[in-house]
Amino acid sequence: MAMLMQGALDRIRRSLKRRQLDAILVTQPENRRYLSGYTARDHSINESAGVLLIPCEGDPYLLTDSRFHLQAEDEAADFRIKLYPRGLFPLLRSLLRKQRIKRLAFESHYFLHSTSQTLTKLADSLKVELEPLTGFIEELRLQKNDAELALIERAVLLNEEVFQEIYKTLRPGQTEKEVAHALENCMRLKGAERPSFETIVAGGPNAALPHAVPSDRPLVAGETIVIDMGLVLDGYCSDMTRTVVLGPPDTKTIALFRLVRKAQLAGLNSLREGISGMVVDKIARNVIERAGLGERFGHGLGHGVGLNVHEGPSLNYRNRKPLAEGMVVTVEPGVYIPNWGGIRLENMAVVEKDGCRVLNRDTTFLDL
Amino acid sequence: MAMLMQGALDRIRRSLKRRQLDAILVTQPENRRYLSGYTARDHSINESAGVLLIPCEGDPYLLTDSRFHLQAEDEAADFRIKLYPRGLFPLLRSLLRKQRIKRLAFESHYFLHSTSQTLTKLADSLKVELEPLTGFIEELRLQKNDAELALIERAVLLNEEVFQEIYKTLRPGQTEKEVAHALENCMRLKGAERPSFETIVAGGPNAALPHAVPSDRPLVAGETIVIDMGLVLDGYCSDMTRTVVLGPPDTKTIALFRLVRKAQLAGLNSLREGISGMVVDKIARNVIERAGLGERFGHGLGHGVGLNVHEGPSLNYRNRKPLAEGMVVTVEPGVYIPNWGGIRLENMAVVEKDGCRVLNRDTTFLDL
Repeated sequence: MAMLMQGALDRIRRSLKRRQLDAILVTQPENRRYLSGYTARDHSINESAGVLLIPCEGDPYLLTDSRFHLQAEDEAADFRIKLYPRGLFPLLRSLLRKQRIKRLAFESHYFLHSTSQTLTKLADSLKVELEPLTGFIEELRLQKNDAELALIERAVLLNEEVFQEIYKTLRPGQTEKEVAHALENCMRLKGAERPSFETIVAGGPNAALPHAVPSDRPLVAGETIVIDMGLVLDGYCSDMTRTVVLGPPDTKTIALFRLVRKAQLAGLNSLREGISGMVVDKIARNVIERAGLGERFGHGLGHGVGLNVHEGPSLNYRNRKPLAEGMVVTVEPGVYIPNWGGIRLENMAVVEKDGCRVLNRDTTFLDL
Repeated sequence: MAMLMQGALDRIRRSLKRRQLDAILVTQPENRRYLSGYTARDHSINESAGVLLIPCEGDPYLLTDSRFHLQAEDEAADFRIKLYPRGLFPLLRSLLRKQRIKRLAFESHYFLHSTSQTLTKLADSLKVELEPLTGFIEELRLQKNDAELALIERAVLLNEEVFQEIYKTLRPGQTEKEVAHALENCMRLKGAERPSFETIVAGGPNAALPHAVPSDRPLVAGETIVIDMGLVLDGYCSDMTRTVVLGPPDTKTIALFRLVRKAQLAGLNSLREGISGMVVDKIARNVIERAGLGERFGHGLGHGVGLNVHEGPSLNYRNRKPLAEGMVVTVEPGVYIPNWGGIRLENMAVVEKDGCRVLNRDTTFLDL
């Protein structure tokens, strides 16, 4: 994993130098993993499995506690491991001194206000200037290299295998919760680390909620059933949505499926290096708007996927930046009709120079 | 659930008044649930399911987005639901103005540094003074009422049912991961919402790590196998550890089991209102120290459990505050011998006026 990201540390260091920063403290768990190869997970933002201190010059450090010592030594081969028996800050004090760090960046979007107050006190006492950064390392993670793309593709294919296996067993009368549980159980049995988010299974009126939580409501023949699921394999995430119907769909359902699929294909066909997330969103959205259902598609078209299941770049009205080769995004238009149901179709694709490569192969209910 | 906490809002308001604060913004998800009954969970600290704004005078608000509208209306009956179509801050601006809030508290330990910068700008522009607080609502949650204790007891008993069912199926050759997965699967099948933390199954040398992660190592007869598991039922958590041996344990193992159990009983027997967490920890630790194994027990004796699986009060050398009736704690001494294995035994108990009530009934391998 450390080898996977060869060069990332150098890019961080150059970028720090340009900003006249002496070092950065990396607290965001996926950034930590990306740069070091260290795979431990935080129990919560309050209970960290470790922090990287990356100076412009000299060795980078992984600071952690004794529980993670062996794992850190094993995985973060390019880092010096330092243990903090009494919490992070006393150790940080001595390292900042020893390394003569005078301008220190930290990750403002993964640093609690309360912890930042402790850091500020420490920095003041050492006359260290603090620089809060947001998205600094996430920026590096946007474009995936070949090794990362291979891992993401494996996650997508495993995701489809799980979906297909459980799809075959769906019957009216099963509850949404039962199906969600069966999907998550199957993921684990097939070797996934865990779901990448809480699996959504939503039938009938529940399918009209884009972020429905599986309920005790049974599946009913003829209704749309939205299944939005993802898993983590070797750290990388998948995210896929299929909408299915048990028994024959009626004509309204078929018409809406075709509309959503048309919007999805319009989005996928426009994806290429140089186009902005805003324009891709607009192109897909136009299809649904022209059918008079623009207000029934209330969320963005897609988002980046990698070590986090939600990361940059966004495909929505706010993202005016051009997409670049190697970015991985979801394309997931939907229509949601209150008290009736909803349809969402989501595939993942890699942005390429002259187009995109769709990572999904499963076609269940895509082309009605 | 809202009814469960009758009176908590009044206590918050009185406490705000004493500190001359006009309102508090509640972001911590379990605090939000405790005060409002609203059970939605945050996808991450960056993707909140909503925020409470509780003024000293007048109605409390639950601020959320359209995805959670119905759930919020259903669950948070005592709160006015306000939706933010364009993020929290524009809505907050209008509410702070309308309510004439001039001194606003926020939860410093569940507020990102980056978000606090946005809040600070907003507050400056409205001439609102900000007061970061830590543990303000957690303090209220320390002592559980009867309804909460009943829910916690149900979680503990379900936890034991799951443990006993899987324990019967343990065989040498199964991997730690398989067993952890079977436990989590069984939890869900029996109606738990989810595990309260990632289940630990650690055999042989892995059992020497207090926070081991289940591996592909198979279980081996005669070795100690530490199983540390918890679940969430109706929002409340359980946490239990058993150490088991497949086949007959040897004399060293039996001696260590007895030692750890003796330490646990010493801790439980000392628990009562008025004693400090520090003293309870010391009493249990003395048992292990007298056996010359003090250095092999490298963590605190226990922690509080409630809506969070790790909450106050701590049973460790730092907590000098007296315990109070209705607090729920784990008592979990352990000994960890590198390259050999480990033994940890964990029960949960409620602090009472003159002693404690142990919530666990399972005795598997407790009294060898």
